[in-house]
Amino acid sequence: MADAKEQPRLGESALIKQYLAPLCHPDMSFGLSDDAAFLNLESDHQLVLTKDMLVADVHFFADDAPELIAKKALRVNLSDLASKGAEPVGYLLGLGLPLDWTESWLKRFCAGLAEDQQTFNFPLIGGDTVKSPERLTLSITAFGKVPKDLTILRRNASPDDDVYVTGTIGDSALGLLLRREPEDYPDFGAKDGDVLINRFLLPQPRLQCRSLIRQFATASMDISDGLMGDAAKMASAANCALHLDDTAVPLSASAQAMLDVTAVSRDVALTGGDDYELLFCARPQDRAAILKAAAALDVPITRIGRVAKGKGVCLLDGNGRELPLSKGVSYEHF
Amino acid sequence: MADAKEQPRLGESALIKQYLAPLCHPDMSFGLSDDAAFLNLESDHQLVLTKDMLVADVHFFADDAPELIAKKALRVNLSDLASKGAEPVGYLLGLGLPLDWTESWLKRFCAGLAEDQQTFNFPLIGGDTVKSPERLTLSITAFGKVPKDLTILRRNASPDDDVYVTGTIGDSALGLLLRREPEDYPDFGAKDGDVLINRFLLPQPRLQCRSLIRQFATASMDISDGLMGDAAKMASAANCALHLDDTAVPLSASAQAMLDVTAVSRDVALTGGDDYELLFCARPQDRAAILKAAAALDVPITRIGRVAKGKGVCLLDGNGRELPLSKGVSYEHF
Repeated sequence: MADAKEQPRLGESALIKQYLAPLCHPDMSFGLSDDAAFLNLESDHQLVLTKDMLVADVHFFADDAPELIAKKALRVNLSDLASKGAEPVGYLLGLGLPLDWTESWLKRFCAGLAEDQQTFNFPLIGGDTVKSPERLTLSITAFGKVPKDLTILRRNASPDDDVYVTGTIGDSALGLLLRREPEDYPDFGAKDGDVLINRFLLPQPRLQCRSLIRQFATASMDISDGLMGDAAKMASAANCALHLDDTAVPLSASAQAMLDVTAVSRDVALTGGDDYELLFCARPQDRAAILKAAAALDVPITRIGRVAKGKGVCLLDGNGRELPLSKGVSYEHF
Repeated sequence: MADAKEQPRLGESALIKQYLAPLCHPDMSFGLSDDAAFLNLESDHQLVLTKDMLVADVHFFADDAPELIAKKALRVNLSDLASKGAEPVGYLLGLGLPLDWTESWLKRFCAGLAEDQQTFNFPLIGGDTVKSPERLTLSITAFGKVPKDLTILRRNASPDDDVYVTGTIGDSALGLLLRREPEDYPDFGAKDGDVLINRFLLPQPRLQCRSLIRQFATASMDISDGLMGDAAKMASAANCALHLDDTAVPLSASAQAMLDVTAVSRDVALTGGDDYELLFCARPQDRAAILKAAAALDVPITRIGRVAKGKGVCLLDGNGRELPLSKGVSYEHF
């Protein structure tokens, strides 16, 4: 991961004291001098819990900038909280360091954590540090809070609900192609390419949509495994069908440019992962109110389909005919 | 990890549905159909959070029985909860499966989880499943609860407090030697050996001491990295010294038998890890009450020293003279 000559390294206690303790919330973690953290919640709130593990060269590239690895680990969890309309409370960090970790790497990693903790008001409150010989392995448990009566689940989608997404779809999947094999796309501009790669490296959790989600969403989830696959998961949880309008799915100008000048299929954008946009359902009678609320946000909200009786997800063309997807809808992690 | 011919395997969704969803608490996790869990706590309680990661061939042997790996992962976390006097609420499981995982292995692993969930009333409430190519990597986040006014920290130990441990010390460190190199100890009996190995494989979280800890402990932690090293951590957190009486440290008959017939140093028992006993401090005026409360428990409680002004931990012989430790007190994870 970096220069192996950089020795001797810190022991565990020194590492915690020097790099992790300064990231900690004093009232919940006691400077990491304890193995447990304590969390008090207002009595009218409930806790939202989510956990995402990230493994080097599975979820990110081991040679990505350490600051970006740190931020991505926090943001994929914050995205889950955003999908529930939750306000971030804090997180536990499971840090599995490979044998060749260096202090300079760790310093940059912690600087990335510190920046995003500040950006999202999301303090470290505890965790564990272990040896993970071959690969950096991160396990974040994120805590958020919502009022007690506000449990927004995937399974509460119901027929005739509208289906919306935030932001644009597919940037990250296209960015991953560029990050992995840049030489395969010689005719595609560097500027658009950088936009897409950056979307892969640094997700934007849509926490600014929290009050819109709280107010209008009947069901909500974040899109981490591709729009079509995640829509299928929502359909399955709700025991309904999701009909998505292909012409309505919002693509960024950079994504559209890449699809225009390369042989990459539009399906990659619709089924690739790592969007970290929100997919939510809402009642048709709330359309105008949602548009109005969305106008105040710095991220577009687009209606892309509707919930119907039935099962599964389907993609419809402008005439309502089902479009086939070359490789099916779903992404499986192994 | 098992027979590689056992193919094809389940995809992620099927794995979750078939093996993990049945372990779930219905009110908090909604059958794992969501990426987030919701947790409501009584308004007079606070949440206790702890996280321990376990990596194959670092924290357990990859070829240990899958049921035991599962139970150890839960129990090392339950031990942290026990040290805070907390009542178990539930856990999130981060499951990093190696490339060669098999369904038969997973089935046994989940059977182990199910048994301990029952034993400790400790339901699964969510988590994440990822590919961890070389090694099984487990990340458990455990939740417990205590009354709001009951925050028992390491740092609240103060001079003149007594120091106690539960159970017996060193069994697991000796068991690890036997598990790793059984042929090195030909003269040591199999029966005592099995007792020690079992203590390494299957920790006993001392949750039955919860009310004693709540009532009497001024400071408390669990012993996971060796008695001496963990006592040093408590001393450091409390900015005091811990003076431990070597003659008082409770060894099991099996551990004593191993020290008697092998060349293994007593220091291994005092500095080795994986005890998962509790180390706690209490006021001297509570000695009689603690003895009385301890008599009702199925685990011994032994007073092994006292807190003093100063720094660090020292081990004293029967005449109050400091004993040197061959390799120092502390264990570092990397």
